[in-house]
Amino acid sequence: MQLTIGPRLYSTWSLRGWLVLKRSGADFAVRSVEYASAEQKAALRDHSPTGLVPLLQVGEDTIWDTLAIAEWAAETYPQAQMWPADPVVRAYARSVTAEMHSGFAALRDLCGMGPGHPIAGDVRSDPPSDPALDRDLSRLVSIWKQMRGRYGADGPWLFGAWSIADAFFTPVAARVRHYRIDLSQHGDTDGIAAAYMQTLLSQPDFLEWEAEALAS
Amino acid sequence: MQLTIGPRLYSTWSLRGWLVLKRSGADFAVRSVEYASAEQKAALRDHSPTGLVPLLQVGEDTIWDTLAIAEWAAETYPQAQMWPADPVVRAYARSVTAEMHSGFAALRDLCGMGPGHPIAGDVRSDPPSDPALDRDLSRLVSIWKQMRGRYGADGPWLFGAWSIADAFFTPVAARVRHYRIDLSQHGDTDGIAAAYMQTLLSQPDFLEWEAEALAS
Repeated sequence: MQLTIGPRLYSTWSLRGWLVLKRSGADFAVRSVEYASAEQKAALRDHSPTGLVPLLQVGEDTIWDTLAIAEWAAETYPQAQMWPADPVVRAYARSVTAEMHSGFAALRDLCGMGPGHPIAGDVRSDPPSDPALDRDLSRLVSIWKQMRGRYGADGPWLFGAWSIADAFFTPVAARVRHYRIDLSQHGDTDGIAAAYMQTLLSQPDFLEWEAEALAS
Repeated sequence: MQLTIGPRLYSTWSLRGWLVLKRSGADFAVRSVEYASAEQKAALRDHSPTGLVPLLQVGEDTIWDTLAIAEWAAETYPQAQMWPADPVVRAYARSVTAEMHSGFAALRDLCGMGPGHPIAGDVRSDPPSDPALDRDLSRLVSIWKQMRGRYGADGPWLFGAWSIADAFFTPVAARVRHYRIDLSQHGDTDGIAAAYMQTLLSQPDFLEWEAEALAS
């Protein structure tokens, strides 16, 4: 089994896929690819039907899209309990995960990660100012506060125990840190969102990713 | 159980959610909302955390995002067999469904559905011309041909038997029809994609949606 990822310093979707696979307990190899140049993009297209990463090869088969990889891992490694056990809580976990999968366009566009805007390290940028970004950040804080408040009593993660939702929000936490975004300005009046962000940024798997990103 | 949908004439995500619930066999009511005016948008935000539709209320709980609704329905009504039974084929079905969920930006932007660009009825528009749209259409045809060719032997749907992937591609078929897009110009050399598109547009559930859209 092989996971194809992009540059660890700024490929946020690769980080999501990698975190999910690590948590699943799967035994997998990692192949890192670059996609800065036209040749590199063309080479990636030979393996990736979408030209995107991450990409999971299982035998002869290739699963693309981070959410499909996550659902595959959740089904294949049920002992890892990657979604909440309660059906309704699981539906909320999938709701916020799917919302992250297709939404938060302003946050992703205006606070992009890339060369000069890394996931790891001490480089920081000032937050852009934009009404659409403010709406995304308010929504983000609202999700984090609500889910932590309603379902997070049994642990530090969004739904108490670790779930795929946490993998999906980890690069967002790195983004918020890099762009010096003050969550208290976006509705985090009690620090619940900030504390959850620290949980994401201090998880051992993320620290391992960071260390490898900085060493590469 | 109640599904909140937008205008049937052009709310493509509502159609996806409704098709999935119909196929699940769930007993559900439908509430239609408009979101053209600022007041209507504000009223929708009272019920919808994202301000988007569709939205599924189950008792006190509200599941948003079409993909989360689909996964909830697949789990809650296993007898409806809404994903392919084989794990690898299921991973492909989720890959193309997730790709539709977050991708095809040019197709969605340049061939938008809305007032004047309806899902139902005989109104047609000329296709816009754009390289990004061409790439999306080539990718669409490639998905349809590949999955039909590899996994579609046992039935007319993308993976043979009906699956959630078919619900996700049905509004795309309506879009292709409305914008008079000739799939043979985008790689459909053998008509496999065009035939699949006709399967989507002639499914009884879609015809029911169309009839109600035109009557509203």
